[in-house]
Amino acid sequence: MSDAFDYSNLIATGLPAPAAKWTGFAKYNFIGGHNDPEGIPVEGLVASAERVLKRRGQSLATYNTDGGPLGDIELRQFLADKLQQYRGFTPSVDEILITSGSNHALTLICDSLLNAGDTAIAEEYSYAGMLGRIRGSGAELLGVKLDNEGIRPDSLKSVLEDCRSRDVTPKFLFTIPTIQNPTSTVMPVHRRREILDLTREYGVAVVEDECYADLMWDETWPDSMRAMSRSEHVIHVGSFSKYLSPALRLGYVVAPWQLLSQMLALKNDGGTSALSQMVVADFMREHYDDHVASMNTRLERKRDVLVEAVREAFGDSAKYEIPAGGIYLWLKLPDSVDTLLLERHALAEGVAFNPGSQWSVDPDNARSHLRLCFANPDESTIREGVAKLAQICSREFGLPAT
Amino acid sequence: MSDAFDYSNLIATGLPAPAAKWTGFAKYNFIGGHNDPEGIPVEGLVASAERVLKRRGQSLATYNTDGGPLGDIELRQFLADKLQQYRGFTPSVDEILITSGSNHALTLICDSLLNAGDTAIAEEYSYAGMLGRIRGSGAELLGVKLDNEGIRPDSLKSVLEDCRSRDVTPKFLFTIPTIQNPTSTVMPVHRRREILDLTREYGVAVVEDECYADLMWDETWPDSMRAMSRSEHVIHVGSFSKYLSPALRLGYVVAPWQLLSQMLALKNDGGTSALSQMVVADFMREHYDDHVASMNTRLERKRDVLVEAVREAFGDSAKYEIPAGGIYLWLKLPDSVDTLLLERHALAEGVAFNPGSQWSVDPDNARSHLRLCFANPDESTIREGVAKLAQICSREFGLPAT
Repeated sequence: MSDAFDYSNLIATGLPAPAAKWTGFAKYNFIGGHNDPEGIPVEGLVASAERVLKRRGQSLATYNTDGGPLGDIELRQFLADKLQQYRGFTPSVDEILITSGSNHALTLICDSLLNAGDTAIAEEYSYAGMLGRIRGSGAELLGVKLDNEGIRPDSLKSVLEDCRSRDVTPKFLFTIPTIQNPTSTVMPVHRRREILDLTREYGVAVVEDECYADLMWDETWPDSMRAMSRSEHVIHVGSFSKYLSPALRLGYVVAPWQLLSQMLALKNDGGTSALSQMVVADFMREHYDDHVASMNTRLERKRDVLVEAVREAFGDSAKYEIPAGGIYLWLKLPDSVDTLLLERHALAEGVAFNPGSQWSVDPDNARSHLRLCFANPDESTIREGVAKLAQICSREFGLPAT
Repeated sequence: MSDAFDYSNLIATGLPAPAAKWTGFAKYNFIGGHNDPEGIPVEGLVASAERVLKRRGQSLATYNTDGGPLGDIELRQFLADKLQQYRGFTPSVDEILITSGSNHALTLICDSLLNAGDTAIAEEYSYAGMLGRIRGSGAELLGVKLDNEGIRPDSLKSVLEDCRSRDVTPKFLFTIPTIQNPTSTVMPVHRRREILDLTREYGVAVVEDECYADLMWDETWPDSMRAMSRSEHVIHVGSFSKYLSPALRLGYVVAPWQLLSQMLALKNDGGTSALSQMVVADFMREHYDDHVASMNTRLERKRDVLVEAVREAFGDSAKYEIPAGGIYLWLKLPDSVDTLLLERHALAEGVAFNPGSQWSVDPDNARSHLRLCFANPDESTIREGVAKLAQICSREFGLPAT
């Protein structure tokens, strides 16, 4: 068109690369935090939508309905009750801020605490979104070592001491203690105590992300870190994305008003979508237990299918811990396998996974790791996809041996 | 508590003031863009929620459901059809990005186009949220004069010439041509043509915000600016907040992929809430015409009640244009009235309105203006609230004379 307008002179400098056009999900979709379509409680959501709209629909006429900018009051009340019953602590509804996914909560935490030049600490392997937020703020990002019980206290102590010697107080430690992302480990109580005491001693806040904590197959899982004594420096984050639906975009942060009021001032989005909040509050008040039990049964079966498929297809070439819950398997392949390269080949054949380097404070430290989410594909797709991935890996890197 | 943790050393510098605790809506609530509770189509939303959840509920298991990050495909299809039928142009569904309210769309536009030191132009009285976004980017904000047909071309020409003489190309002109916020005027076609030609000549994009355009009582309203020829430099923004519900947080932006791909790269929110999108798409495909007609009847009656109440209570002390649509009345009180001071007194007695200076590029230029939203209060509350406001104004400023 002769009339076309060229925006290139107007677009700002310093932006991320433009997005690519979306071409649909991969056939073998092991990426992201997608969930199981069969696990969406459609009938229950229909009933809740009808009930809550008839009861409260008119309140959609105002921003934030009638609960104010912290979020729907019934959803905050559900969360206060659930945190008391299952996670061991009892926030007031005024200490809970509903966000558009936990990613949004983490963004508000970073924006409230980090200036360029500040320092933050994360687990050596951690949620890519949060690592990106910390780096994007211009803060220095330091990693602490993990073992199969989560953060190693000796590593944390050494990082904190090193910071102190440079007269630096890190703003926070970001941890996912209950089903870590990506490693799917659970930090036991004694470790939680050590991490709490160390961070408190050094004046460092703890950001505890429990967005997978509902998806724990062993019902003896530990209370949240925020539930333990002397844990007032813990900012608690959670989500509905992993045990209900990521497309609803509902998460939350629990923090004292001193900090929450600062996050709220930065949350200039006109509120989080109220229909989702209302419907989910109504649904969860009646069905939380049943729904989570059913989701966990489903996910545990898929975990078994994936682990079996990986064992068959990769044999000794893949090292991993069996996940205690959640939706991820974290694999270490032989050092000769570059998972960023493997990703490119796999995508071309319809197999999508997350390369480890994107989930690592030091990308080089996870060049041969990858993360598989087993929640979305059905069981036969899991088996086929893993077999296909092993074939591609074998063809490109000679391992696993065929 | 002896164990309390003091976050004050950890909170970032340069933040906005912390939020105040929410204490509920004012009794006489004339602020913001709240809507009419009676106008929420509860039964229709219930039916749509049931229908769409049964048909598509399982797709909530993935981020962004099955339509990708631009937003729900059925909602984008509805918008493409609606824009064709009512606003005069036909975007492809791949040129429409669903956002969490139009405010979010405007944020993405500012973030895509503005660096610190850039220049943007807005109408002298305009949407406070956008003025804040532009200022917050560090860009210079210039105002152009309005009359009762919108932007005065002579004023725009003079601003553009002045910029050119300083070798500055403003990034965009922000305009609300169809029911301007806050003045509620409509820019006629010949003006639109002049503004389009001028901006194009100077290489300046136009951000056209049509979030009130559905609420027009005269059905001969002009097509959007984007619908006119040689308008490829127009970025079109709209919303469901004003004719359906602000609490749903649904807006959109229409732009060429060159620019939209940049906005999409900045939209790192995991997607806009999918349940609201699905339900609204289903509802609007069946009920757009009926719903908008019913909402407009309701709002026109409230406009009449407000105008009559202002005439009775303020007499010659208040100057205004009768709104041609929308939800706002923009009042000019005598110069001796400082509406920021008036606001403080009024709030203490339960009357909330928006002081003009917050809706003005030059705050001093609207010190005696105020904006009343007539959509939310019922008719008797409108009458009582306006009478109360006039009493307070009279008591504090001697006008209107009692």
